[in-house]
Amino acid sequence: MANGDVQLITWWLKEAGQIALSCFNQPQVDFKHDNSPVTQADRDIESLLVERIKKAYPDHGILAEEGTNVKGVEYLWALDPIDGTRAFSVGLPFWGIAIGLLRQSRPLTGAYYMPYLNEMYWATETDGPYFNDRLLRGAIATEWDDRLRFLAVPSNAHQVYDIGFPRTRALGSTVAHLVYVARGAAIGALLRRVSLWELAAGLPILQRAGGAIRYLSGAPVDIGLLMDGRPAPEPIVAAHPDLIERLSKCIEVKAVE
Amino acid sequence: MANGDVQLITWWLKEAGQIALSCFNQPQVDFKHDNSPVTQADRDIESLLVERIKKAYPDHGILAEEGTNVKGVEYLWALDPIDGTRAFSVGLPFWGIAIGLLRQSRPLTGAYYMPYLNEMYWATETDGPYFNDRLLRGAIATEWDDRLRFLAVPSNAHQVYDIGFPRTRALGSTVAHLVYVARGAAIGALLRRVSLWELAAGLPILQRAGGAIRYLSGAPVDIGLLMDGRPAPEPIVAAHPDLIERLSKCIEVKAVE
Repeated sequence: MANGDVQLITWWLKEAGQIALSCFNQPQVDFKHDNSPVTQADRDIESLLVERIKKAYPDHGILAEEGTNVKGVEYLWALDPIDGTRAFSVGLPFWGIAIGLLRQSRPLTGAYYMPYLNEMYWATETDGPYFNDRLLRGAIATEWDDRLRFLAVPSNAHQVYDIGFPRTRALGSTVAHLVYVARGAAIGALLRRVSLWELAAGLPILQRAGGAIRYLSGAPVDIGLLMDGRPAPEPIVAAHPDLIERLSKCIEVKAVE
Repeated sequence: MANGDVQLITWWLKEAGQIALSCFNQPQVDFKHDNSPVTQADRDIESLLVERIKKAYPDHGILAEEGTNVKGVEYLWALDPIDGTRAFSVGLPFWGIAIGLLRQSRPLTGAYYMPYLNEMYWATETDGPYFNDRLLRGAIATEWDDRLRFLAVPSNAHQVYDIGFPRTRALGSTVAHLVYVARGAAIGALLRRVSLWELAAGLPILQRAGGAIRYLSGAPVDIGLLMDGRPAPEPIVAAHPDLIERLSKCIEVKAVE
């Protein structure tokens, strides 16, 4: 069990996707104390995944966005039942179910499924990344391209950052932004208030594609500091290592959130 | 032939969608004199649609993004073979084929098909709007909502506008932005350099949903001035009439493009 059973994980993701699709477009939305939205689908999917993991790996820990916190030995599953709940709530396609498996604080296996798009992404420490059945090698942007590619940004980026890159898009899901960097659709991504469950799912996919992350300030991201579920203290930039510094220089913080 | 034969139009759109999907994700991209991208799929789809229209309506005019300009009597078809060519080129889902039918300078029937999402939208002067087989009545946002909904913007909006609305998204296609306003996913849309083929397809869908457009300055949009294919001289705001002024006040032009 070094990398988790990928076949099992993708099966769980598809099962969870069915729950989400069944109430897509007309969910009842509540707001949490931090004003972020949550739907019954978030809660139902978290319950399903927690149950599946507990049964398959009874001694593993689980940390999930909607509150699950199960202590375990050596391995930790980090879950986001719906990454992109706002996009999900208004009927946009960019939302999905995120699963990451960590050993100590090292992400091993990450998987992300966007049910409406039927796009499944996964990578282990040694294999992938895969986009559905296609190996995604060599897709990530390694050269500067400001004619077609975009910088993926948070939807409030216009209020918080001055961005020099010509084109930005906020698609709705942090993990989607990471996989679209891995695929070479985005030249890079600017991520804010990222939590363990987003990085644990997206980072193996990005890294196996040749990408990397660091804080906007240039400092390295210590995953160990996010293991309690608190969001990253600074914005993060994701891109190929050859582009990450030039991209970071295009981004200036102009307002405190 | 007051509204065009919708069944015929949606059939053409699906036929065109097959062409686009066959080279989606790896198209050869060229750049036009205005630096906007074009692919072989744009050209092939325009040829297909022009051929279909000429056969079905030999005395109608046709104006299309990639250069077709056929003079006709009374009716004009405005076509965008791929609206969202950049999104198409990098593998994002938000691109589609846009068809609008005008009588003199009045948009009658608009239809938009996003093949990767399998989302078909259409409306005539008296019917619709439809999203696939679902009548889209009452979906448009009529009340201020800055918790879930977003303002759809161009991908370079961060360099051109100061925007006070909390969340913005640039999905990649102007017509998609109009239909997502009609669906109530976006609270409104800010459109720049809009051309006849985008408005002719999107406006009937937006208007039948209860939405409207005007220039950011507050001036009415005279479609007649766009009949030669030149883009609108000012940015356009699309939303429900009750919201359009408040939204416009959130948008300030800070730089000339």
